[in-house]
Amino acid sequence: MPVPNTAVLLITCPDRKGIVAAVAEFVYSNNANIVHTDEHTDRDSGTFLMRLEFELDGLKLDMQSFAREFAPIAARFEMRWRVALASARQRVAILVSKQDHCLADLLYRHGIGELNCDLPLIVSNHPDSKPLADFYHVPFHHVPVVSDRKKEAEEATMRLLAGEKIELVVLARYMQILSTDFINAYPGRIINIHHSFLPAFIGAKPYHRSYERGVKLVGATSHYVTEVLDEGPIIEQDIIRVSHRDTLDSLIRKGRDLEKVVLSRAVRWHLQHRILLYGNKTAVFD
Amino acid sequence: MPVPNTAVLLITCPDRKGIVAAVAEFVYSNNANIVHTDEHTDRDSGTFLMRLEFELDGLKLDMQSFAREFAPIAARFEMRWRVALASARQRVAILVSKQDHCLADLLYRHGIGELNCDLPLIVSNHPDSKPLADFYHVPFHHVPVVSDRKKEAEEATMRLLAGEKIELVVLARYMQILSTDFINAYPGRIINIHHSFLPAFIGAKPYHRSYERGVKLVGATSHYVTEVLDEGPIIEQDIIRVSHRDTLDSLIRKGRDLEKVVLSRAVRWHLQHRILLYGNKTAVFD
Amino acid sequence: MPVPNTAVLLITCPDRKGIVAAVAEFVYSNNANIVHTDEHTDRDSGTFLMRLEFELDGLKLDMQSFAREFAPIAARFEMRWRVALASARQRVAILVSKQDHCLADLLYRHGIGELNCDLPLIVSNHPDSKPLADFYHVPFHHVPVVSDRKKEAEEATMRLLAGEKIELVVLARYMQILSTDFINAYPGRIINIHHSFLPAFIGAKPYHRSYERGVKLVGATSHYVTEVLDEGPIIEQDIIRVSHRDTLDSLIRKGRDLEKVVLSRAVRWHLQHRILLYGNKTAVFD
Amino acid sequence: MPVPNTAVLLITCPDRKGIVAAVAEFVYSNNANIVHTDEHTDRDSGTFLMRLEFELDGLKLDMQSFAREFAPIAARFEMRWRVALASARQRVAILVSKQDHCLADLLYRHGIGELNCDLPLIVSNHPDSKPLADFYHVPFHHVPVVSDRKKEAEEATMRLLAGEKIELVVLARYMQILSTDFINAYPGRIINIHHSFLPAFIGAKPYHRSYERGVKLVGATSHYVTEVLDEGPIIEQDIIRVSHRDTLDSLIRKGRDLEKVVLSRAVRWHLQHRILLYGNKTAVFD
Repeated sequence: MPVPNTAVLLITCPDRKGIVAAVAEFVYSNNANIVHTDEHTDRDSGTFLMRLEFELDGLKLDMQSFAREFAPIAARFEMRWRVALASARQRVAILVSKQDHCLADLLYRHGIGELNCDLPLIVSNHPDSKPLADFYHVPFHHVPVVSDRKKEAEEATMRLLAGEKIELVVLARYMQILSTDFINAYPGRIINIHHSFLPAFIGAKPYHRSYERGVKLVGATSHYVTEVLDEGPIIEQDIIRVSHRDTLDSLIRKGRDLEKVVLSRAVRWHLQHRILLYGNKTAVFD
Repeated sequence: MPVPNTAVLLITCPDRKGIVAAVAEFVYSNNANIVHTDEHTDRDSGTFLMRLEFELDGLKLDMQSFAREFAPIAARFEMRWRVALASARQRVAILVSKQDHCLADLLYRHGIGELNCDLPLIVSNHPDSKPLADFYHVPFHHVPVVSDRKKEAEEATMRLLAGEKIELVVLARYMQILSTDFINAYPGRIINIHHSFLPAFIGAKPYHRSYERGVKLVGATSHYVTEVLDEGPIIEQDIIRVSHRDTLDSLIRKGRDLEKVVLSRAVRWHLQHRILLYGNKTAVFD
Repeated sequence: MPVPNTAVLLITCPDRKGIVAAVAEFVYSNNANIVHTDEHTDRDSGTFLMRLEFELDGLKLDMQSFAREFAPIAARFEMRWRVALASARQRVAILVSKQDHCLADLLYRHGIGELNCDLPLIVSNHPDSKPLADFYHVPFHHVPVVSDRKKEAEEATMRLLAGEKIELVVLARYMQILSTDFINAYPGRIINIHHSFLPAFIGAKPYHRSYERGVKLVGATSHYVTEVLDEGPIIEQDIIRVSHRDTLDSLIRKGRDLEKVVLSRAVRWHLQHRILLYGNKTAVFD
Repeated sequence: MPVPNTAVLLITCPDRKGIVAAVAEFVYSNNANIVHTDEHTDRDSGTFLMRLEFELDGLKLDMQSFAREFAPIAARFEMRWRVALASARQRVAILVSKQDHCLADLLYRHGIGELNCDLPLIVSNHPDSKPLADFYHVPFHHVPVVSDRKKEAEEATMRLLAGEKIELVVLARYMQILSTDFINAYPGRIINIHHSFLPAFIGAKPYHRSYERGVKLVGATSHYVTEVLDEGPIIEQDIIRVSHRDTLDSLIRKGRDLEKVVLSRAVRWHLQHRILLYGNKTAVFD
């Protein structure tokens, strides 16, 4: 899958007249060709959200000059914004516990080019997935978490992430709760997969509770991690049909298939700069 | 849609060896041809559940004799059971408030023969749906519910149901809470549509809360009504995809489409004797 | 559902630099606030497609002046374009044969305000749906189609449409084949519902053929009608799961539920100016 | 996932009265406890289909004696039948070409115990997947297919399969057409994944053709292989939503996710003896 020779401009700001015109005029005057524009206005909060993808061929500026020259426009409209090359590979760490179906899935997708990123680091509180990591040539670090020394384990993990200049942390069924310090170090840059349709079965053992409740669908939810557990902004959700014929085992098996696709979509969209946060929500520009 | 010339035998009992053999032998020895057998064993509770549909052509017994002669087998295995002719039309009442999309849907389906039942009664706490009821020639009763005389309104409703010998009560977006007396008068025979994916947004205004939470799917749930509000056995659930582009209005509109199909499936399955209750769950034999 | 006080500008033209900038600048300079921008570039054909929705409050121009002043920009970029008020109600005719589930669905949706249009006309080759049309106060015309006088029937239908200045023709399970003359009179303005997942079971009796083939899903497809039967641009498709337990009757019943939602989505999107045609495809801007 | 200590009895025969009674009585008289019964009657062909799963604890017979003693009943009803222990691991070969996402998925599932079978053999006409096979410790054979010596390659493959006493052949995106001889050697025991919603885009390059046709859904179909290419009995199908925003690349990527789940479901159901063939259809007893 060839990475397009484009850049993405992401903007969030208070809604006002003239934003699209100012941005489009700036891009055009620098000789760039717009490939996609997506724009959304959240009426409740008066927030304007925009994703603009443009071709680099013929662009008169490099990214640094672009940023410098765009700054006055950004200031005028009070924008939070960033611009990124589609070809720039973000540095991603995967954290995993015992169950490694999401890890295996992400590694395979990365291997065939579905995920445009570097994977310098896998961290796990169990040693089990080391052979899998080795097969894909991704460095694997076993950081055990023992009950009275959790803080040390987390600090060791944070040092590993910092050492590799990690930009995105993917919790691929990582069953440890992160501290506020950890979460604040990666705002809007930690993606978790919750193995249920949030907020239906928040917390632990959602499949057991789905099974007991006799639901006819099970779901999975990927979301950004914020301080309130399982309540961060939802990125993607999907479901699969179940029936009384399903056992708890088959519920869990069906759930695994969901978790893989729901997590990998969130990761890919994040890497493609398709997700904009506003309040406790996301806009996903497809 | 022609109704088949069959009967349905529904059985729930403690799991033991020999149940299928005893039942199948009984049916066979009375010269009936089995069309469908569905059977499920719930391991957690040790419950055996069975639905058996057989043709009446050539059957040596009428339904009363069938019941009498089957009684000893039922006693031996401690069965809760019933037998019903597919052609027997149950008497169904629909309760509705202002929003009548589910009512309109049920009436249309009934009119084209999708729902094999009699509809002697619609009760509403608003007069709005009377023309619709008239068009389909279903008697419509307006029973206003005023805040300090709720009990009287419910009693009036119960008298209407009793007068029409109602066997199944369908709450087609009926926004009144039923008393325990009402619910106990129709055990396992009141079907409600809850306009969300239970148990995600239990209670009132689920679309508003889905919208605020930024979910990517909205759902609907049909269930039997029990004393604990919104926690009765789930019959059917379905979902539809939404995005940040959806407004609260479009969420509600998409939800309406879901509610109609999810409720009508539950009603049809109930009328076809496809649903068996066990604990707080259902087995739906399709 | 209140109709927003906005206008929609739809543009198709050869892809070039500067289109978004020129359009956004024009809108901004006339003091309009952009609510949504959607834009797509089809690389294969080099086609630029845009939908821009803007608020009318504060707009300095009426629609006629808007059109006149926008004309030079349109000419510069060789645009096919149109601008429409969201509040302008298009005039829609529904053509139907015997099966009227889609008709009933559209009439109910129209009645509760889901479809922002006028319905001056239903035409059918059967008299059966007249009571339904009467209930919703929509004029109903029975135009029988007899085998050797098809042309006359179609001409009568076309006169009815012309007399009512119909802008959109909805074939709601209308089982007559339209002539090229008819189709050319409403280019991109006739929507059909095909009761299968096109192109899987093109032509007649798709449910029978799905059933014989033992498929595990049945689908429905809404599309614009072009000269080649069942091969016009697809607007929307959806599916429902089936199994060996389904009879031909239940396949058809499940199909009806699909047809209703798939057709009504297409009609609503058309009325909201969300669909752009290019080649034999559609872009649906949600 | 523990394999249950049960056996499965599969029966196909002309529909007659008394079949269920005779079978259930036989099982009961040998002291077995029935865990699941599923039964279907195909009215069009007058075929009776049954799957019966029973516990082995307390069963008085071993499988050979079971078969011998059941033979007279089978003869009386002209049954095609078989009985199999749930614990018996079938011997499965996977054939693959260059694209190995389905292979990787099947190997991972096998590794975590989702697929109860032995995997003695992977055969490919490309060497690329050898490292993956090695990682999972499955013997990998590279059998190149050159255009004028196709027959020899196929014969080499058949010898490998025969040498390993293969019972099920899985075509995991194997892009070679099999000869009639090959197909006849494994009747009802070759499963293929076709990367589209059959019969929509039969044959080669279905994603290209879906893309050109502007469909709004893409699908995948798993089926048994028969002499007529892509027309064998369908086991499972699923779809995913696409839009004008999808490129051919993203269509193919989405399709890969579908292909994996649709193929793995078919393989698991086959291994669990859940699929019965009749005519050119399947009944899948879930």
